[in-house]
Amino acid sequence: MSRPAINAERLLGRLAAFARIGATPAGGVNRQALSREDRDARALLASLGHARGFSIHQDEIANLFIRRPGQDDMLPPFLIGSHLDSQPTGGRFDGTLGTLAALEVLEAMEDAGVQTNRPVEVVAWTNEEGSRFSPGTMGSMAHRHGRVPETWASLTGSDGALFAEELAATLKALPNAAPRPLGRPVAGFLELHIEQGPALEKENIPIGVVTEVQGTRWLEVTITGQAAHAGTTELAYRRDPMAAAADAMHHLFGSVMPRDEQARLTVGRVTAEPGSVNAIPGAISFSIDIRHPTEAMLDALERQVADTCSATADARGCTVEIKKLFAMAPARFSEAMVDILEASAKRLGIPYKRMISGAFHDALHLSRVAPTAMIFVPCRDGLSHNEAEYVEPEHAVIGARLLLEATLAATRGLDALS
Amino acid sequence: MSRPAINAERLLGRLAAFARIGATPAGGVNRQALSREDRDARALLASLGHARGFSIHQDEIANLFIRRPGQDDMLPPFLIGSHLDSQPTGGRFDGTLGTLAALEVLEAMEDAGVQTNRPVEVVAWTNEEGSRFSPGTMGSMAHRHGRVPETWASLTGSDGALFAEELAATLKALPNAAPRPLGRPVAGFLELHIEQGPALEKENIPIGVVTEVQGTRWLEVTITGQAAHAGTTELAYRRDPMAAAADAMHHLFGSVMPRDEQARLTVGRVTAEPGSVNAIPGAISFSIDIRHPTEAMLDALERQVADTCSATADARGCTVEIKKLFAMAPARFSEAMVDILEASAKRLGIPYKRMISGAFHDALHLSRVAPTAMIFVPCRDGLSHNEAEYVEPEHAVIGARLLLEATLAATRGLDALS
Repeated sequence: MSRPAINAERLLGRLAAFARIGATPAGGVNRQALSREDRDARALLASLGHARGFSIHQDEIANLFIRRPGQDDMLPPFLIGSHLDSQPTGGRFDGTLGTLAALEVLEAMEDAGVQTNRPVEVVAWTNEEGSRFSPGTMGSMAHRHGRVPETWASLTGSDGALFAEELAATLKALPNAAPRPLGRPVAGFLELHIEQGPALEKENIPIGVVTEVQGTRWLEVTITGQAAHAGTTELAYRRDPMAAAADAMHHLFGSVMPRDEQARLTVGRVTAEPGSVNAIPGAISFSIDIRHPTEAMLDALERQVADTCSATADARGCTVEIKKLFAMAPARFSEAMVDILEASAKRLGIPYKRMISGAFHDALHLSRVAPTAMIFVPCRDGLSHNEAEYVEPEHAVIGARLLLEATLAATRGLDALS
Repeated sequence: MSRPAINAERLLGRLAAFARIGATPAGGVNRQALSREDRDARALLASLGHARGFSIHQDEIANLFIRRPGQDDMLPPFLIGSHLDSQPTGGRFDGTLGTLAALEVLEAMEDAGVQTNRPVEVVAWTNEEGSRFSPGTMGSMAHRHGRVPETWASLTGSDGALFAEELAATLKALPNAAPRPLGRPVAGFLELHIEQGPALEKENIPIGVVTEVQGTRWLEVTITGQAAHAGTTELAYRRDPMAAAADAMHHLFGSVMPRDEQARLTVGRVTAEPGSVNAIPGAISFSIDIRHPTEAMLDALERQVADTCSATADARGCTVEIKKLFAMAPARFSEAMVDILEASAKRLGIPYKRMISGAFHDALHLSRVAPTAMIFVPCRDGLSHNEAEYVEPEHAVIGARLLLEATLAATRGLDALS
């Protein structure tokens, strides 16, 4: 038995091999959930695990588990992993890095003959992205609640495929995987993921220890005025919802983020009706994505959006309607798991910073049922959900090394070594 | 010979009859240029003129003329009229009122046996609206230049129809109309039209004497930043074109029109790419329609748009590109024709106000080749290009009375009466 170590060549080679499954001409991947490409990636992961003698399991939502036994194999397993599905024009690292680094951790422990007190399992959660079948994070959400919502049975994909059929076909494509009940208790969960933002790269820090996930609210604001002729309608007679929307956005962009560096405000979609160059629009609709680590501030920001839009609409003789499209509460990760990550990084001499995740992750659901935390590594220019997504090989390896160290710490593997 | 007078019942009856051609369930008309419905309306107009013994003519772009001879029939004719085509969901008065009021003027002169020194012709210009085949004001534009631009031969309509075929079929549908060369000189032109704005109705004035037509510039502004994740990207790393666009619009809406009541600023179209609720857009495009009666101010406003967008884009790390889509110079109508309209309104005891047209009209092209002016009448709520467009019967009749009085004055018909 030796000290387990990440095999960089093996990890990077596998990242390259998985990048070929659903590869796009522009260098990304199109490996949407439950597609043929997704099944191919799952099959490769399962066969790699099987080749090392690990057992393969899947639950009814097709979450895929690769299990290495513990000294006490009856204890709930410690989970590490991420997801294998991608956006339609996705990158090679989003999800895949965390899944393959987790497999590498399992293999490094196997190579070194190290024993853990409890089983360690690699997990690839089903449909994290939500681009083909909505919502995203289906697998971890179903795991958290211990059941598959009835409404999913009738879901249709963006390509017209039936969710129920594609799920059944995906499950059937791995006949050697042992079925297991959904939502079995786990001892903890660690997920390595790319940052999907620019902070680590800009600050030249290879590791982010993620302490919490921001909460999110999605709103749809519709400001209604009166469509009218662009040339004939004097200012006094205008009820212009575009002017009201611009005023509202100007005030919100000028205050929300400058006043609170933890807040995020994004207007990603905007449409004008009827949309003629020479007509004052009758209505403007735009989306608002607000994020914050605290529920109280999310409430306050939502009120600020409503008040600002009401005021600017009112000033221009327009009316406002705001619909809530989606809400995800903030999640604070386990302090014990964050402590393990920090201590592990210090032991390895890896520079890190504590950070908040602005994106959703499967870890968000797991944090509701088990001690959970995340490791971020930098990605070039903060780009993700993009075929140009790129992670420096050294950062992929550093992330895997920290994942190994923390997994050993969390499963008392280090005790066994000492 | 009696004093010629508008026959209100005849005029209103004809407005009702034409409203049935292409009538929509919502009470408007769909009588797009060169369509079957447009041909039906032209045929009805021609048959009404023919029944009164007037001669019927059309030029190669299908402008339709109904001619009542003058004492000196070799003099260039005095033109009155408008257009019969409509928007796809258009109203019953836009264009039709001016055309039928002009026919009523001809009939009123015929009823009274009044002679004019020169011929008077009713004209229905082809494709004023430009909704099926672009550009609009085709007929008057071709008349002004004395030729049909070569590019029109290959135009395809919004319904896939070929312009050349539809024009030929329209010309052929009136076999009894005498062909005439395009762009024959005219002595002057008067066009009665609905205001298409709310000013006359709000001020309770039945007549607008139009002294000029605003100039127009259409710009397409594209602000390019960097698409990024709504949740993970901190303010410091954002290059958000939506924020830059909102800032620019806020400043422009807050200064252009409040500072100069003759200026108009409209943002009718806006799109965000990629248009996801949870992505900072990579680019925002929006149209700007600016109008002003003076070319110098149009230049200044165009510079202000460019400077403002550059400044707000710059402040957010974005770049700007501005394309000019369209420019129409302002037109000042003939002082002599405006004087005739004012003197005529005073003789009839009709309240009026001098006003500027914010919309294009066929009269704009005619003003470049002959003394021209326009008469506006109120329309309910300023609504036009809308199936709910409505003109009070009394206003239609008052407009026709002024058109008759001014036509007689312009053609020395009043001299003949005295």
